[in-house]
Amino acid sequence: MRALQVQGEWVPREGYLPTPREEQTRVARNGSMVWRNPEFALRDLPEPEIARDEVLIRVRACGICGSDVHMYERDDEGYMLYPGMIRLPVVTGHELAGEVVEVGADVSDVRPGDPVCAEEIAWCGSCVACRSGRPNSCERLGELGFTFDGAHAELVATKAKYCWPVHRVLERLGEEEGFLAAALVEPTSVSYIGMFVQTRRFVPGMHVGVTGGGPIGLAAIGLARAAGAGTILAFEPSETRRGLAEAMGADTAYDPRALSEEGRTLADVARDRTGGRGLDLWVEASGAPGVVAELTGALSPGADVVLLGRGPHRATIDPERLIVSGAALVGSIGHSGGAFGRVIDLIAAGRLDIGRIVTETVGLDDAIGSLSRLGGREAGKIVVIP
Amino acid sequence: MRALQVQGEWVPREGYLPTPREEQTRVARNGSMVWRNPEFALRDLPEPEIARDEVLIRVRACGICGSDVHMYERDDEGYMLYPGMIRLPVVTGHELAGEVVEVGADVSDVRPGDPVCAEEIAWCGSCVACRSGRPNSCERLGELGFTFDGAHAELVATKAKYCWPVHRVLERLGEEEGFLAAALVEPTSVSYIGMFVQTRRFVPGMHVGVTGGGPIGLAAIGLARAAGAGTILAFEPSETRRGLAEAMGADTAYDPRALSEEGRTLADVARDRTGGRGLDLWVEASGAPGVVAELTGALSPGADVVLLGRGPHRATIDPERLIVSGAALVGSIGHSGGAFGRVIDLIAAGRLDIGRIVTETVGLDDAIGSLSRLGGREAGKIVVIP
Amino acid sequence: MRALQVQGEWVPREGYLPTPREEQTRVARNGSMVWRNPEFALRDLPEPEIARDEVLIRVRACGICGSDVHMYERDDEGYMLYPGMIRLPVVTGHELAGEVVEVGADVSDVRPGDPVCAEEIAWCGSCVACRSGRPNSCERLGELGFTFDGAHAELVATKAKYCWPVHRVLERLGEEEGFLAAALVEPTSVSYIGMFVQTRRFVPGMHVGVTGGGPIGLAAIGLARAAGAGTILAFEPSETRRGLAEAMGADTAYDPRALSEEGRTLADVARDRTGGRGLDLWVEASGAPGVVAELTGALSPGADVVLLGRGPHRATIDPERLIVSGAALVGSIGHSGGAFGRVIDLIAAGRLDIGRIVTETVGLDDAIGSLSRLGGREAGKIVVIP
Amino acid sequence: MRALQVQGEWVPREGYLPTPREEQTRVARNGSMVWRNPEFALRDLPEPEIARDEVLIRVRACGICGSDVHMYERDDEGYMLYPGMIRLPVVTGHELAGEVVEVGADVSDVRPGDPVCAEEIAWCGSCVACRSGRPNSCERLGELGFTFDGAHAELVATKAKYCWPVHRVLERLGEEEGFLAAALVEPTSVSYIGMFVQTRRFVPGMHVGVTGGGPIGLAAIGLARAAGAGTILAFEPSETRRGLAEAMGADTAYDPRALSEEGRTLADVARDRTGGRGLDLWVEASGAPGVVAELTGALSPGADVVLLGRGPHRATIDPERLIVSGAALVGSIGHSGGAFGRVIDLIAAGRLDIGRIVTETVGLDDAIGSLSRLGGREAGKIVVIP
Repeated sequence: MRALQVQGEWVPREGYLPTPREEQTRVARNGSMVWRNPEFALRDLPEPEIARDEVLIRVRACGICGSDVHMYERDDEGYMLYPGMIRLPVVTGHELAGEVVEVGADVSDVRPGDPVCAEEIAWCGSCVACRSGRPNSCERLGELGFTFDGAHAELVATKAKYCWPVHRVLERLGEEEGFLAAALVEPTSVSYIGMFVQTRRFVPGMHVGVTGGGPIGLAAIGLARAAGAGTILAFEPSETRRGLAEAMGADTAYDPRALSEEGRTLADVARDRTGGRGLDLWVEASGAPGVVAELTGALSPGADVVLLGRGPHRATIDPERLIVSGAALVGSIGHSGGAFGRVIDLIAAGRLDIGRIVTETVGLDDAIGSLSRLGGREAGKIVVIP
Repeated sequence: MRALQVQGEWVPREGYLPTPREEQTRVARNGSMVWRNPEFALRDLPEPEIARDEVLIRVRACGICGSDVHMYERDDEGYMLYPGMIRLPVVTGHELAGEVVEVGADVSDVRPGDPVCAEEIAWCGSCVACRSGRPNSCERLGELGFTFDGAHAELVATKAKYCWPVHRVLERLGEEEGFLAAALVEPTSVSYIGMFVQTRRFVPGMHVGVTGGGPIGLAAIGLARAAGAGTILAFEPSETRRGLAEAMGADTAYDPRALSEEGRTLADVARDRTGGRGLDLWVEASGAPGVVAELTGALSPGADVVLLGRGPHRATIDPERLIVSGAALVGSIGHSGGAFGRVIDLIAAGRLDIGRIVTETVGLDDAIGSLSRLGGREAGKIVVIP
Repeated sequence: MRALQVQGEWVPREGYLPTPREEQTRVARNGSMVWRNPEFALRDLPEPEIARDEVLIRVRACGICGSDVHMYERDDEGYMLYPGMIRLPVVTGHELAGEVVEVGADVSDVRPGDPVCAEEIAWCGSCVACRSGRPNSCERLGELGFTFDGAHAELVATKAKYCWPVHRVLERLGEEEGFLAAALVEPTSVSYIGMFVQTRRFVPGMHVGVTGGGPIGLAAIGLARAAGAGTILAFEPSETRRGLAEAMGADTAYDPRALSEEGRTLADVARDRTGGRGLDLWVEASGAPGVVAELTGALSPGADVVLLGRGPHRATIDPERLIVSGAALVGSIGHSGGAFGRVIDLIAAGRLDIGRIVTETVGLDDAIGSLSRLGGREAGKIVVIP
Repeated sequence: MRALQVQGEWVPREGYLPTPREEQTRVARNGSMVWRNPEFALRDLPEPEIARDEVLIRVRACGICGSDVHMYERDDEGYMLYPGMIRLPVVTGHELAGEVVEVGADVSDVRPGDPVCAEEIAWCGSCVACRSGRPNSCERLGELGFTFDGAHAELVATKAKYCWPVHRVLERLGEEEGFLAAALVEPTSVSYIGMFVQTRRFVPGMHVGVTGGGPIGLAAIGLARAAGAGTILAFEPSETRRGLAEAMGADTAYDPRALSEEGRTLADVARDRTGGRGLDLWVEASGAPGVVAELTGALSPGADVVLLGRGPHRATIDPERLIVSGAALVGSIGHSGGAFGRVIDLIAAGRLDIGRIVTETVGLDDAIGSLSRLGGREAGKIVVIP
């Protein structure tokens, strides 16, 4: 089968001593510390074989994520930028939807022919975190498209327990649009967990701000709109993404650089738009330095700030702002624990038109070119149709 | 000023001994036990005088509630049907919006000219329930339109702390539609508290059932839709109300009598529509006997059933159904505690078109006729425009 | 190995048609509908073999549960009373602690020599309920001691993912008392889930009532005390159990029959003890008819009533009581989802002396006699030490 | 009556321009910006007169708070250190208990002779925050002992709605110990709100860390113990306070300076004590720089860090730590909203022996000396008995 594979050289950076486990498994905890000269190539690989609890899926759509771009990009010394867990070589791609073509002997929940999407997080189901209802903190995490082969390929194998049927999505949207939307359940669920599970309590009518208009931020805007947010404010430098933000439901999308030139901050805008009260929920999806500190200037009493965006910087905050407002900074990671089911239901019921964030579809042949173009952080979502 | 007033005779039913406090205040805890021969009349009353913490409001719209109808209706012995707290004579009307015309000396939050709506529940703010964040359980409750004069009148007086500005509602909808919508904030907040505050946790994508298509049920449907419910099923015998239910966002509105003729129950339908899983949230807004037992046949794991509808009957349930599903029956009463602000924001942001449930507006002269017509439980909301 | 096994005859009751799945698997959904003439016997069975994901445990303590008694008892026609899921023959016993003696090839979380207790609920980990964080509602549930062999035996096999290490319990209590306490983690976790996970929010200082002084009720009392409940009231007819209730932390244990003779109800007592306010949390652990209705007479604003006790009766309640108090009836089942870890930590930290509810330990030889004695619902917990 | 009064000079710091409202009311938002040369003196003042909704209380005990010490202390330019809202001259003292001696005409909830304690926060009850259930964020806040006269005096006047009866505390502890404990309900409620109301969900068995062993931290330890925390770790440099921390229920109290000398951090200790897992709840009650960053090194999945301690510094954190753990930094302020009732019930039920944190009682004559001694941050709570 044809697949987009990334290879690289295991050359721990000077001063970085891999753990014995890293040496043994070649799963780096932080790819940017060991993997040098990453090279993407379209290859012809053998079809995956499936275990008793796995399914084989013919991929119909698989998004390109910022993480994929970070695997592609290198620093001055040739190391990949991606700072998360990864083993090379690997087939990339973890925002997938497709059709089941074969199931293992122990599989009963899905059948050949079923349209499905799948969780990227390969939670073990048996560690303390997993059996305490926290699969996103699994102690033996694998990751599809990072530690085992992903879905920028014609076929992909994964456990049945990570798959969610999407018949109703296809019924609503048709096959083509349906698989596209289904492929976006993964990033949308990241936003969903952050906004509705990790927070203290979201209630309709709350005013919401979203910083960062990449796919996670755009999904957050769509979810805020679907969930009955009052005012929804977006902050994003790219004009294209601001347009997408408003298409997804933001009342206004601001350019933070333009605000800055006017001498205004995000917090100024947020206070102005809420009669001085501030926002009830902030979703930080930019990962940009300084943003968290800035938005704490407009917290309503009891506000939650969800941290989804990731970056290498520290955040310096004035604790008084959280204290005086009874506000919280809430970290969130992952998409497992049931969010897929809710997001699928939202899309199938027509409450969330997530396909709108797709600005381009490409074939496998053009995927490498897309990785390069996405480096500009200008586009919406690009989806590979193998 | 002109006002719709109900009078009656204090004749405790045989066998009912009013408490000393009831005798002294003439506030009956259960109107149907003491008030005989209720008579509604349009009268010319003196303008209300306001205390230092009160405001005088020129009423621009005031809904007619089922409670008003129960005050109007009598049983065979001539007693009013209304089973709640009431003192006669009283001007009825508690779903109100209007313009502030005068404020007391201590009032700073609203000003003459402000458009407002107002809570019906006159919570004291100082009992243990109130200062523990439970104003809907206030131990010294008064009720506008029941224990003191309400808003089926040209003018009404109430404390400033019960008033909520609605400028933004008028900005969105214009003055006429804006005051109509603002008058409906009160019943909508009853549904809001039940669905989003009293329950364990509502999250978008949940499947919702609503039994009863009167104004509380219709508001619940609109809120479910605004809040991103997945499938929304309504159950209501009146065809008119079923039409309103679908207009407010129900995916399907069923006639329970027709289902019954086909040998199907609410629970059968709910299971069919959710792949056997059952609903995640039921809103019981009919107050009809037998409904609670019936809907417990379709509870998803962890489902909540909110009880809003009131009636004189008992409910007989099989506790196993709650136990096996980890489900809850959740009682809810009142609209105070902040829901008004959230509902106003939802309407002002265009997320909830609550005005759609209004099927008729009438002047004060026609209000008595409307009370009689509403007895049929067929119409949507009728609003008095004084 | 020696084991306590129950056998019986598959004779569906007249009028009861087993499902095809029941016929095929011989797992009855309701044992009392098909299993006739249950017979307990101490047998010599082959040692269990373990699968790759299983462990073999040498049982050091295993409680006798009310369910075991219901398997032992027969109705007039000779059917077992137990109304839950069961396949015969089966080794009983599901409240277990012991020492791991062997682990399967895929097991890494426990090792031979580890002291452990184990969940009874064999949740699949892959159905929608399980992966949505609701293992207690698993769609493919097995049950140790009911659908596969349990721990009234010298050895028992179960999956590693159901096992929880209890080293720290043994460190605190010594080996003998430690295994006893560890065996009680299972019933204690049933109460824990009901009180702290299923409810809306328990906070310290809340006043708690517990109806029923069997092991689940006694554990609830101990947990209420550990969790900082204010007043704790228990209601239980057996004098022995009332004594245990007070030993576990109840401020007062009442005999409901004695109250009844005085013309007082549970609700009267609860109101008297709380200045008229009612209780904030009721734990219904008796399964007796009429209790739910009675206790709804003393609900504080926002109270939760947790239903743990099971019986064949219906509950007839006045919905007004839930509505006016904003109170909830909350069903709860199961002990999975992380409660084991919390309960073990409570015991290991010395906050909960659960061993106190054990009134007797017996060998395997005396287990059948204990089943007969427990029919009287007088004793505390009896634990088998194989 | 005799009272401890602080006076000072209104001399805005260079570069600080008071708002018109500050100029008019002389209530500084930040005392350290305007009040110079604060002087405490024991004076003979007229007895307070009470309004219709107020009560007059004979003070029986009133704690000295860190804020009082900050009013007493001056910087190099002679400005008071206290950075909060304050108007001079004012009688200090806000941790009070006493006996009601007179009630205003509108007061019905308390009567002369009642023993009470009182909230310091004078929430208005009518702003949007108050009527939305957030009195701790009141928009028109007054503060007893800061913006109006407090309780380091023989008598104090406050509104009845801020008073909570403590009969049962006196019944349990006797009059002397009872009033002492009742005076500590205020600081204990600050910890209570942070730990049990502001967080996402505290459940028994959670492992808790408390940084800072002043009265707020000591109360947090006592509450953690009362609420069934598993391991409780305290961190505090003062040996006296470490002793109090262990007396209140900490399993171990560490000296952070000693740890630092050993090259260990708080996080190292917390991980060691929990098998590497980290703590489930951190209560930051030191207000010391660097502590928040340090403790984020030991967060269990889903952990909450409550910020109670206040200081002038910023906190620099690595957002990845919150993200990867799904953890939250939760600000908390205030004690209103019902916590007083819960804390009183805990003390009255014997679950919390808060009096243990009192290391000294003094008369009004010795209060000024105590202010000076408390500057060392060594003692527990000092209480004035007027």
